[in-house]
Amino acid sequence: MTQAIPATKQTATFTKLVSKEGGVEYDLKPIHVCEETFAPLEVHYDYDAIRRQVSRESIAAGPNSIWRYRAFLPVASENPIDVGTGMTPLLKSTRLARRLGLKELYIKNDAVNMPTLSFKDRVVSVALTRAREFGFSTVSCASTGNLANSTAAIAAHAGLDCCVFIPADLEAGKVLGTLIYSPTVMAVKGNYDQVNRLCSEVANTYGWGFVNINLRPYYSEGSKTLGFEVAEQLGWKLPDHIVAPLASGSLFTKIYKGFQEFVKVGLVADKAVRCSGAQAEGCSPIAQAFKEGRDFITPVKPQTIAKSIAIGNPADGPYALDVARKTGGNIESVNDAEIISGIKLLAETEGIFTETAGGTTIAVLQKLVEQGKIDPDETTVVYITGNGLKTQEAVQGYIGEPLTIEPKLDSFERALERSRTLDRLEWQQVLV
Amino acid sequence: MTQAIPATKQTATFTKLVSKEGGVEYDLKPIHVCEETFAPLEVHYDYDAIRRQVSRESIAAGPNSIWRYRAFLPVASENPIDVGTGMTPLLKSTRLARRLGLKELYIKNDAVNMPTLSFKDRVVSVALTRAREFGFSTVSCASTGNLANSTAAIAAHAGLDCCVFIPADLEAGKVLGTLIYSPTVMAVKGNYDQVNRLCSEVANTYGWGFVNINLRPYYSEGSKTLGFEVAEQLGWKLPDHIVAPLASGSLFTKIYKGFQEFVKVGLVADKAVRCSGAQAEGCSPIAQAFKEGRDFITPVKPQTIAKSIAIGNPADGPYALDVARKTGGNIESVNDAEIISGIKLLAETEGIFTETAGGTTIAVLQKLVEQGKIDPDETTVVYITGNGLKTQEAVQGYIGEPLTIEPKLDSFERALERSRTLDRLEWQQVLV
Repeated sequence: MTQAIPATKQTATFTKLVSKEGGVEYDLKPIHVCEETFAPLEVHYDYDAIRRQVSRESIAAGPNSIWRYRAFLPVASENPIDVGTGMTPLLKSTRLARRLGLKELYIKNDAVNMPTLSFKDRVVSVALTRAREFGFSTVSCASTGNLANSTAAIAAHAGLDCCVFIPADLEAGKVLGTLIYSPTVMAVKGNYDQVNRLCSEVANTYGWGFVNINLRPYYSEGSKTLGFEVAEQLGWKLPDHIVAPLASGSLFTKIYKGFQEFVKVGLVADKAVRCSGAQAEGCSPIAQAFKEGRDFITPVKPQTIAKSIAIGNPADGPYALDVARKTGGNIESVNDAEIISGIKLLAETEGIFTETAGGTTIAVLQKLVEQGKIDPDETTVVYITGNGLKTQEAVQGYIGEPLTIEPKLDSFERALERSRTLDRLEWQQVLV
Repeated sequence: MTQAIPATKQTATFTKLVSKEGGVEYDLKPIHVCEETFAPLEVHYDYDAIRRQVSRESIAAGPNSIWRYRAFLPVASENPIDVGTGMTPLLKSTRLARRLGLKELYIKNDAVNMPTLSFKDRVVSVALTRAREFGFSTVSCASTGNLANSTAAIAAHAGLDCCVFIPADLEAGKVLGTLIYSPTVMAVKGNYDQVNRLCSEVANTYGWGFVNINLRPYYSEGSKTLGFEVAEQLGWKLPDHIVAPLASGSLFTKIYKGFQEFVKVGLVADKAVRCSGAQAEGCSPIAQAFKEGRDFITPVKPQTIAKSIAIGNPADGPYALDVARKTGGNIESVNDAEIISGIKLLAETEGIFTETAGGTTIAVLQKLVEQGKIDPDETTVVYITGNGLKTQEAVQGYIGEPLTIEPKLDSFERALERSRTLDRLEWQQVLV
């Protein structure tokens, strides 16, 4: 039986996979590496087709989720897996901006992304929609925590079997925030890079859809929506400068790609956007290469509290380097103490509680401003990619304690007096 | 210097405070109890003025936050404190709906509300905007946890001094999720009702703005946005049935008020919406009164894992009873084991991890369906009001554990075989 095509139907705008080193082309299969160049594969689009399908108005009239940008995403389904992911707030900063001396600072807050409070919900929504199109019944991932949360949650929603792989030493909140969805969880005694290598073997042996291995070309495209949304939320304009965390480097390159695509199809005016990246000093292979002027990455062994971005051998490192250099951006790193200060600074000035990756990004933002590498006049967007409730261990011991009192007015008043004295003392210390 | 009034300027639509028992009127001050009837005070609006100011189009063109409904909220400022609160996803359920046998079930998910992952961000955004209008420089609250998170976060954003009061035995995530914003935190040795009584004394003595005491008439209006958003997200239609948690009873009555106001100004067609409420058995004074046909509440001493809704002496209990009865709804309670099952059921079928209050609501939803009190044909909306990462203790021990493996294929394969055998055994037990 043939069905009438509804008026809103979009034709697929993605046409093939192409090696990132150019040249070699592949069909749209669950593969991720070019057999000839060993380079990652990337989805190729027909931008003329996209231009004919979308307008600012059609996007604004779309769902309040990443799927308003469906023409730019590599899925064929009329009904993608839409759990309300994306369209997270872009907050105009006042107090953090003033503290840093920036005139126009925006915070893109994926710490409240649906359903699992990190940007990974974007890439997983795309990957699992594509996994379903390929007919995979079991989905999987190699994860530093957030990806496991997201894959398990969205697989549960979609009714797909799920097996996730995490390093055994992850934060409790990330483990529990995965188990709650009842997937199979493999806790691997090793760091992320070892987890990732094991998963590549499993992917070759089992017929599973690994969101960040054999589905990676589709998966990674989901991060472009962090570029699209910022452009739309700024009133269909690009910012002057962005600061985002670097783990594998993929997110960073895809935000840039998102901006470029919006220019290409005429949704925003062309503009040079400087792209700066943030790493934790204890795992900063991309920042090191940037500083040393190298275009290759020397893998490192991670040793940092910022576990969600602790990838010692980042797959997209060279491409991230390239984006930072050609846009006039920078890549910096900060140590664990600075990361904790970054978490506290964002909480105390803006009321946003982010995880260690966000603390890293805020601390690098501050460092770049202090170094004069971000101009106070630049419209700057900082990307907060995950929630602080998942890495509570990181800040415990650095945030003070409640004042315990009896349920009586005089007990309260004594405590208040005590706390004010303490505040005054601290204040005097600052002045001294 | 007089300024030209911009075209978008709205005139204040709220005019006075009125006793909920009728009759007595007050100016718009920071007061919350009628001096004559001792009844709570409620904000009164000029609905003709609202009708002239708003349309579906003007609302849809507004900010992607609760402030798109500003004409219905009791603030005068042109620039309310907007941290992106509200417009959380309304998820159409497939797997939970099928499990329960409901044809059309929606989940309103404030577990991803901005900034602190509970519906309290709505009421606090309104209360602190109003606090600023009144000139309060210190804001405060009596809280079971979520409210403390929200007040501390939004006060930090707005640059207001903040002192919050919580029961000393709160979940770790809720304490840390408050301290991170650097307010003064008073941990009171006692239950919420004792905390609340102490705060009433403090409110009378200190010139502070207590969001849920002297600012309560303004604060509580913020919950109406949970009604507005659902109506707008359903395509400007009201649902047939809602299920929401009951703590003080305020949220429940305000969702109902929100629906009524939309009818009153002609934004949606009139329709009877059945309103059902959920309580934890260990603190169910409203459910008990409902069952016994009473119109008054007998206070109880809370004893439940659902701490965020453990209010033994609920201020708006009688009004919640009235709403449930006059709309043909029900009020039910569930025990702690059912609450945990409710959390797991929502996670496993929809990929949403909620806290104990949400587990309570899901378990009551299930109970009402089983009792035939929700018709499978009714369009039903269940309200999820908070995030599971804040009450991790509640589910620990009920969610299994990861399988720890070496980073080697054979170690993985042995673990996988083991887990499949376990699954089979469990499955056989179910069949037996």
